[in-house]
Amino acid sequence: MASRSLHSSRRHPLTLCASLVQNPMNLGALCRTAEVWRLQELVVSNADILTDRDFRKVAVSADQWQPIRICPSDRLPDWITQQQQQGLTVIALTRHPQAIALPQFTFPAQTALLLGRELTGIPAALIRQCDAVVEIPQWGCVESLNVATAGAIATYEYLRQQATS
Amino acid sequence: MASRSLHSSRRHPLTLCASLVQNPMNLGALCRTAEVWRLQELVVSNADILTDRDFRKVAVSADQWQPIRICPSDRLPDWITQQQQQGLTVIALTRHPQAIALPQFTFPAQTALLLGRELTGIPAALIRQCDAVVEIPQWGCVESLNVATAGAIATYEYLRQQATS
Repeated sequence: MASRSLHSSRRHPLTLCASLVQNPMNLGALCRTAEVWRLQELVVSNADILTDRDFRKVAVSADQWQPIRICPSDRLPDWITQQQQQGLTVIALTRHPQAIALPQFTFPAQTALLLGRELTGIPAALIRQCDAVVEIPQWGCVESLNVATAGAIATYEYLRQQATS
Repeated sequence: MASRSLHSSRRHPLTLCASLVQNPMNLGALCRTAEVWRLQELVVSNADILTDRDFRKVAVSADQWQPIRICPSDRLPDWITQQQQQGLTVIALTRHPQAIALPQFTFPAQTALLLGRELTGIPAALIRQCDAVVEIPQWGCVESLNVATAGAIATYEYLRQQATS
């Protein structure tokens, strides 16, 4: 198939870390987004999710092509340190008093984006480990964007900047 | 409630038209996104969707605050004409040979964004009625982004441009 030939071509060096994300549909949506944009890696907390019915429905087979790494959420402190040792900038995507607004943030090419858990977000200790905190400006009564939507938007901004840098 | 006080403040003059979108979860996700960003209006094909269980689960009450208009999809030709007569630029968001890549497109402030139906997209006759066609660059094996994700990304780009113009 023609589409298969893309599989060997270059990936964007962005890692999307969804180890804190719990809803299978959100994980499926993130997998589809990661694959459509050929991201380096998607990180999830356990392999069982890949056979979940809701995950599969939303991922529309993207997991066949998207590189996926497993990192349980209690291993995230080590994972963040590892990424940093490998030269990646680890960015927490969450609403936060010290956060930089997404359109004002300049992404390094080698980036890992840490997404929050539904409702509770990213634990403070993990935020402190990250190199930067970024938030998406919002003005509504509903408290926040859906995590899969937020992850896609931040990834779009990353790709937009990389294309023009 | 403090959040209610936001209700009377300014909205971004972007209309998100999801009349072709059929999946209640996608419509719920678009409603949440529209509300979080205080968009002018969300257009859906019928009012029944607002009581759908899947819609309500994903919309997390955003429909309480988000202005929603009903326009059945077979009325879209008239709706597009009306928007244009009112001075709005109507933009089809879809993959298309003549589409402008989203990061290269300059949004007018008064914009209506027409989203496609899941799987089948936007009928050619409606695309021809629109003032512009915009697509989100993508490189994966999966054919396209989810429509609610795509709508959120295009809206982010619109807001980003409006904030800096």
